Amino acid sequence: MDHLRDPKAIYEMSFKIIEKETALDQYPPSLRPVVVRMIHACGMVDLTNDIAFRGDVMKAGQAALAAGKPILCDCEMVRSGITKRFLPDVELAQCYLNDERTPALAKELGTTRSAAQVELWGDAAEGAIIVIGNAPTTLFKVIEMVEAGHMQPAAIIATPVGFVGAAESKDALTQSRVSVPYITVTGRRGGSAMASAAMNAIALGGQQL
Amino acid sequence: MDHLRDPKAIYEMSFKIIEKETALDQYPPSLRPVVVRMIHACGMVDLTNDIAFRGDVMKAGQAALAAGKPILCDCEMVRSGITKRFLPDVELAQCYLNDERTPALAKELGTTRSAAQVELWGDAAEGAIIVIGNAPTTLFKVIEMVEAGHMQPAAIIATPVGFVGAAESKDALTQSRVSVPYITVTGRRGGSAMASAAMNAIALGGQQL
Repeated sequence: MDHLRDPKAIYEMSFKIIEKETALDQYPPSLRPVVVRMIHACGMVDLTNDIAFRGDVMKAGQAALAAGKPILCDCEMVRSGITKRFLPDVELAQCYLNDERTPALAKELGTTRSAAQVELWGDAAEGAIIVIGNAPTTLFKVIEMVEAGHMQPAAIIATPVGFVGAAESKDALTQSRVSVPYITVTGRRGGSAMASAAMNAIALGGQQL
Repeated sequence: MDHLRDPKAIYEMSFKIIEKETALDQYPPSLRPVVVRMIHACGMVDLTNDIAFRGDVMKAGQAALAAGKPILCDCEMVRSGITKRFLPDVELAQCYLNDERTPALAKELGTTRSAAQVELWGDAAEGAIIVIGNAPTTLFKVIEMVEAGHMQPAAIIATPVGFVGAAESKDALTQSRVSVPYITVTGRRGGSAMASAAMNAIALGGQQL
């Protein structure tokens, strides 16, 4: 069957189509590669209807990576979707969901493992990049911690997905007093691929590949 | 912030909302849990506009798992999204994308690593479940191999995503002479989360959790 087989050509044509079909000039230049990669990950150019942001996640995220700060992922799919060769150190991408301490902590706190893991980040969250692609409860917890002054991450990528809490958690972010730079997709849409894609764009620093 | 924290309650409410907003009776009973989980993974009830299938992936997939056949994933995100405790054996979920032989093979064949890995499946693909959440080139390759009689998997979950080849590869599947049971999402939409979710539904065999 006739189709493109060259990975570089496939990427280039994908990005060209997205640029043609999307009004990217509504975003600051530094955010455009992030938006392009998020759209690339889901195949939906109308994602722009729902993308919301504060500050410059590209600049903040790049500075965090340069300082060797970790990338704290809410689930293994997000961590898996981060292209390790784009990172200064593969060990920076971390996920505490399956940490052996998480189930007991979740039970103790009466919450999900996704939310409980945030308690395990401790000092690692200071200046870190937080990437949430799945769980609204993780995002709610992060907003609470930041608003209470218990956590000061460098940037937040927040695309939890689904029918219960996803839209609400992202509305809570956009309406919060959180001054941390973030990018999000309001409503029910989201997912790990989108979150990893945004992170990959930041790690690439605006380079296409 | 007030929100649901009990994971079981979150799942139940999510599935209730999906059932309320979706005309599930357009699907055979065995496929409904698969469709529900695919929608759950992406937050979009209008996914039903694009879902296409042939045969009974639930029945075929369950038989494959019972026979200890592998689940061959096109990328690590798909493998990561498969809930290992739902499987009879965690080792069944496999991905050859990062196999050490794949890059040289891709170069030799003039294709992507995603497509080249299919050559490495060999006998493992006989009676296996193939789960493609990312790469159109993997799906094109699988269709070619099956049509040529070089491969006889038990079931195909095919939700490659994006702007170059995704829609075309899924159209090739629905228009093919492939008699293998499959479920797919036509058009640009798709992704690893959707693919893993369909696989998880099969592994659960229609149980909600």
